[in-house]
Amino acid sequence: MKTVTLMFDIKGGNLIMKQLQADKTTNGYWAGFNGGDWQESIDVRDFIQQNLIQYDGDESFLAGPTEATTTLNNKVMALKQKEREAGGVLDADNNVPATLTSHGPGYIEKDLEKIVGLQTDKPLKRAFMPYGGIRMAEDALKAYGFETDPKMHEIFNEWRKTHNQGVFDVYTPDMRKARHYKIITGLPDAYGRGRIIPDLPRIALYGIDRLIEEKVTDHGNVGDGEMTDSVIKLREQIAEQVKALKGMKEMAASYGYDISRPAKTAQEAVQWVYFGYLAAVKTQNGAAMSVGRIDAFLDIFIQRDLDRGLITETDAQELIDQFVMKLRMVRFIRTTDYNDLFSGDPIWATLSMAGVGMDGRHHVNKTSFRVLKTLENMGAAPEPNITLLWDKRLPDGFKRYATKVSIDSSTIQYENDALMRNQWGTDYYGIACCVSAQPIADGVQFFGARANMAKTVLYAINGGIDEMGNAQVGPAAEPIKSEYIDYDDFMKKFDRQLDWVADVYVNALNAIHYMHDKYDYEAEQLCLKNSRLDYTFATGISGLSHATDSISAIKYGHVKVIRDENGIAVDFKADHDYPRYGNNDDRADSIAKMLVKKLYDKMNTHHLYHNAKLSTSVLTITSNVVYGKNTGTTPNGRQAGEPFSPGANPAYGAEQNGALASLLSTAKIPYKYATDGISNTFGVTPRTLGNDTNSQQDTLVNMVDGYMENKGMHLNINVFNRDTLKDAQAHPEKYPTLTVRVSGYCVYFADLTKEQQDDVISRTYFEAM
Amino acid sequence: MKTVTLMFDIKGGNLIMKQLQADKTTNGYWAGFNGGDWQESIDVRDFIQQNLIQYDGDESFLAGPTEATTTLNNKVMALKQKEREAGGVLDADNNVPATLTSHGPGYIEKDLEKIVGLQTDKPLKRAFMPYGGIRMAEDALKAYGFETDPKMHEIFNEWRKTHNQGVFDVYTPDMRKARHYKIITGLPDAYGRGRIIPDLPRIALYGIDRLIEEKVTDHGNVGDGEMTDSVIKLREQIAEQVKALKGMKEMAASYGYDISRPAKTAQEAVQWVYFGYLAAVKTQNGAAMSVGRIDAFLDIFIQRDLDRGLITETDAQELIDQFVMKLRMVRFIRTTDYNDLFSGDPIWATLSMAGVGMDGRHHVNKTSFRVLKTLENMGAAPEPNITLLWDKRLPDGFKRYATKVSIDSSTIQYENDALMRNQWGTDYYGIACCVSAQPIADGVQFFGARANMAKTVLYAINGGIDEMGNAQVGPAAEPIKSEYIDYDDFMKKFDRQLDWVADVYVNALNAIHYMHDKYDYEAEQLCLKNSRLDYTFATGISGLSHATDSISAIKYGHVKVIRDENGIAVDFKADHDYPRYGNNDDRADSIAKMLVKKLYDKMNTHHLYHNAKLSTSVLTITSNVVYGKNTGTTPNGRQAGEPFSPGANPAYGAEQNGALASLLSTAKIPYKYATDGISNTFGVTPRTLGNDTNSQQDTLVNMVDGYMENKGMHLNINVFNRDTLKDAQAHPEKYPTLTVRVSGYCVYFADLTKEQQDDVISRTYFEAM
Repeated sequence: MKTVTLMFDIKGGNLIMKQLQADKTTNGYWAGFNGGDWQESIDVRDFIQQNLIQYDGDESFLAGPTEATTTLNNKVMALKQKEREAGGVLDADNNVPATLTSHGPGYIEKDLEKIVGLQTDKPLKRAFMPYGGIRMAEDALKAYGFETDPKMHEIFNEWRKTHNQGVFDVYTPDMRKARHYKIITGLPDAYGRGRIIPDLPRIALYGIDRLIEEKVTDHGNVGDGEMTDSVIKLREQIAEQVKALKGMKEMAASYGYDISRPAKTAQEAVQWVYFGYLAAVKTQNGAAMSVGRIDAFLDIFIQRDLDRGLITETDAQELIDQFVMKLRMVRFIRTTDYNDLFSGDPIWATLSMAGVGMDGRHHVNKTSFRVLKTLENMGAAPEPNITLLWDKRLPDGFKRYATKVSIDSSTIQYENDALMRNQWGTDYYGIACCVSAQPIADGVQFFGARANMAKTVLYAINGGIDEMGNAQVGPAAEPIKSEYIDYDDFMKKFDRQLDWVADVYVNALNAIHYMHDKYDYEAEQLCLKNSRLDYTFATGISGLSHATDSISAIKYGHVKVIRDENGIAVDFKADHDYPRYGNNDDRADSIAKMLVKKLYDKMNTHHLYHNAKLSTSVLTITSNVVYGKNTGTTPNGRQAGEPFSPGANPAYGAEQNGALASLLSTAKIPYKYATDGISNTFGVTPRTLGNDTNSQQDTLVNMVDGYMENKGMHLNINVFNRDTLKDAQAHPEKYPTLTVRVSGYCVYFADLTKEQQDDVISRTYFEAM
Repeated sequence: MKTVTLMFDIKGGNLIMKQLQADKTTNGYWAGFNGGDWQESIDVRDFIQQNLIQYDGDESFLAGPTEATTTLNNKVMALKQKEREAGGVLDADNNVPATLTSHGPGYIEKDLEKIVGLQTDKPLKRAFMPYGGIRMAEDALKAYGFETDPKMHEIFNEWRKTHNQGVFDVYTPDMRKARHYKIITGLPDAYGRGRIIPDLPRIALYGIDRLIEEKVTDHGNVGDGEMTDSVIKLREQIAEQVKALKGMKEMAASYGYDISRPAKTAQEAVQWVYFGYLAAVKTQNGAAMSVGRIDAFLDIFIQRDLDRGLITETDAQELIDQFVMKLRMVRFIRTTDYNDLFSGDPIWATLSMAGVGMDGRHHVNKTSFRVLKTLENMGAAPEPNITLLWDKRLPDGFKRYATKVSIDSSTIQYENDALMRNQWGTDYYGIACCVSAQPIADGVQFFGARANMAKTVLYAINGGIDEMGNAQVGPAAEPIKSEYIDYDDFMKKFDRQLDWVADVYVNALNAIHYMHDKYDYEAEQLCLKNSRLDYTFATGISGLSHATDSISAIKYGHVKVIRDENGIAVDFKADHDYPRYGNNDDRADSIAKMLVKKLYDKMNTHHLYHNAKLSTSVLTITSNVVYGKNTGTTPNGRQAGEPFSPGANPAYGAEQNGALASLLSTAKIPYKYATDGISNTFGVTPRTLGNDTNSQQDTLVNMVDGYMENKGMHLNINVFNRDTLKDAQAHPEKYPTLTVRVSGYCVYFADLTKEQQDDVISRTYFEAM
């Protein structure tokens, strides 16, 4: 939010657009590239289309880490250990609101770093980011023993309002209740919404000056002079983006780099891309700060330097290693509440790779391999959140290498490229956070947390009274009073409560996104996207499996209600067995499908901020533990307080027919409603996959191929023995880098709470396919 | 913008509206008042209706100043003298952004003050108000030799955006041009828009707690839960208003007063009302910070105390004197540019009085007299801007006293009560700034400066090329190329340029009001009005008389164009004489009417921010000098750079048929379009009015009655000999408090620039009626 000298100068009586210093010799930077539309307008996808270098071989070409990388990595790992010992946070600012230029350059060890740039002036030192909410920033500091500078308290309470204050100024009593009783949880009203994928390659391909020039042109083209609110809003946003681009140049200059022009070398290309990401994480502490999709892009620059003889494979790997190392070092300071929802300090530096183009060519390239190789060169780590855009047509060599990494480190998630490419109409998309596809050039998501479907089932039974809080939260309606629950009666009552959930949920989000735009606009990320954007209004569902099984129980199991002295249902008894979600039984699975569509349709009747398009997700991340803790006993037999199953996973223990049947159930959830993603966290023991690595790889490849052919959307793959996890819980010192995939991201097992470790241990690890 | 603990508490599982501490014994405060609707809902007008105390006598009951008042006034006058000697500003904050509670209590001499409260901690010390624009705040300080604290520069550039930055982020090149070449001037994009009349009596009648309670109820009633942008906006605004009300209590408490409850005495009533005004001027440096209409209201409290024997008339006068003294002390620090437009440091503490009710009762009361008496008790002064809502039915005693004050001090303006009361549909309205009526309970104006109609005439002739800047500013159209101007040809071209002016003007204002609401919302004033408001979108016209006479010359005078080497018209010669506006000649006057309607209709085709209702004004304040300076020679013979006539006044020298003919011309401007006001600054020599005070009063009363009967809207009355002004210019020391009315406000003659003094001297002072 710096003062901008806009691009217009009044001079000699004429209004002249100041000639931006676009380097006229740009073609010099672009030597060796195939030309195309991308030269005329900002179009990274076209550049990739024209210059893609497919790789069909195996991993044998890869190089190990350089000494510099290893030295740096050891330093970072030592700092990470110190951080863990310090209770989670090593150091934190308390009096410098983070901006692009609030900090001078920071280094791990300057001379060894090929890729430079830290969020603050010291490694792992966390920045002070009050714009999402000063109270949260203060609470976060306090949680780790720091005090906020009193001047900051004054500034961000008296003079500069923050997002969180804005939201709470407009919430209705219903929204406060829904939030308090956790029928809607995790709303981004107290933290950054994140989920924006900047088109980072733009910086390397065009240089900042060209991007500014285009933004100035866009600014001129917003509206025909008629200043409606929406025209004003977009004009101001673009003006803020121009300031952000200028700030980025200044930030890079402090590290000695001139990013006003395109990158000349592979090193510069990686560095320029990283500066774009650094700009994002210096200014926003969004829940998910995605990196996007850069493998095919960077590969073109790397190959050019290799071809010119400027670098070796070892140099190339060093660039990628050190880039990834920087991604591993990103930190935010967060409140205890937040950490309960999203454990293990994740930031979702989601890095999407591979995939197949609209023209049928796969996009696997050597740099896709190089990124996977970082896990070997520097050890397993939760970040970046490596995401493979999977298609049956990906080359075998890559498929096998990927599954090998999964087996070794359980750090990869797999997502259905064909499903997403067709839904979103482009092959230049990336994953934001865990499972949310986003066109990189012109798509943005308004992140929306999730509603508790299992609790809604209980509200239907209890007439809107919260079973844990014993308070009227949902609409006051007639509860079910009969001894046994009648399915038709239940569904009518459920509909009424779900109407209310949809209403309160969507409208709370309307308030949130209005205020986020007003008080915490993400100019530093959006400046790297088109000016005209398609917005997705994300929402989410938690407790789907428990709601499904509960309704199945009501429908097929003749469920008797046990009530407390207040008449609140506290336990259930099913007289008969009933079908459960996770067994490829349509009787149950169709209930899950119905629930997703029903909530979607109800939400879609409402006003959606910024005319965004509604989407939903079935994804809980680690919040399944917190959701479960706040939800009473459900008719499917899940006891009060017990964790939900994560994401779209079947309830623990419900799956009785092996891995494949479970996967087939999940694959039935209709992606066309849940375009924000359907997460499946899959666990299997190594032995189940095969007796040796080779056959384990075969099984995994076949399983992922099969899942995706059946329109399964996403798989977190964990390959463990439960005993390993139990041992790691008992002896953490033996497993400092043991990484597990939870619902949509990775985490060091050691960074989870005891409660969450227990949850991970109790998850299903299939022992039969 | 303080953190608010909203009114909702979640407790025991239920959402409870916290019982605000509304004093249950309110009836105690209201003892002696007639009851009515006003007790059930916030309704000051109804309170006045039920309790109005008309006064039909003369001024003989009035008391002189107390010793305390005189001592305090002498101190203030000495400070004012010091301030003038210091170049205009005595002292200024540079590191404390002004809020309700940013300063501890300030006094002139505490023990003598019956009414307390200063904007800062010291008399005449000016506050630092960056929200309208940090650059302006800094420039203003610099203009008087102060430096802004660098930390403030950082905060309000890096962390907290201001109104001015927002506006310039969205302006189009056309808007920048229109502004730069001064076809549109004085836009509130670099200063507070002002023009909001808070319903100050609410505090005294109800106390702050009751007002908070009502606002919380209103907050609950905004929207049915569907969070559209407009619902969110209003909910947030009301939340900000609640914070402002709480801040006001805190501010008053620092002076030892508890305004949470209603006023118990006359002294408290005046003090509570003043605290409301103080809240406004502590937080907003709007161009016009109006006081509203408080005479009938305060009179009821004063009379109650007089009747109870608690106070004497001298005590009553002391309260009003000291209240008015405080209004005279309000100061803002402003830039040189601003002072050029609005000379003499005005703040428009416009205080409207008298008027007639919807039921036919006049509202003149003893306190209306007491306010006029302050001019005698403490000497003439420009503030407050005393405005009489004139109706033929006002009692004679008051009419004569008012004209006497006009003759003595030239400090009063007269406005047509019947015209405004009927237009706005209420008798509880006040004047904002100079001539802008505003329903006090539920009306708000978006202030809009003015467009230069005379320059638009020249753009039509020159094909949109600015005659002073020699640049294409208006739409590039065929200029008039013939030797003589053809009227029909001219009108077609004029239409095209006026279309453009209307478009750019209205849309610049759309941007301005959007950003003012976003970055500088007037919560401290709007918290004292209804939550649901009617907004007026104000605009204005300058140079009306010159445009009118120029078009009349073109139509009737056979005008020849003299062009420079670039083909720009630089002079005009009319072959024949032609009718001029200001002589009650319909041929010219109808052109003036046509111009007002034409611009209004063209502006009304556009989107208007917040669905406000369009209004326009014919009012220039002192900016007629600056407008003239930037406008070339016009076809009516006015030379390039010469001042325009102010407001709706005829061109100097054009009026040849005496005062009444001039007034009749002005009265023809249709108020239904120019509901923002039509200003007429009238000058007459004492001798012209009569040979003695009595006959001078008679003449003035008859003149004002006659003007208003003819639908004249407004009159500034100056009674001078031109020689007095010339003498005052030559010997300022002889006339330290000589006050003149300029277009819509008063100013100490000594505070005007030489240029503006010359303009005032050269105005018409009628020597024949």
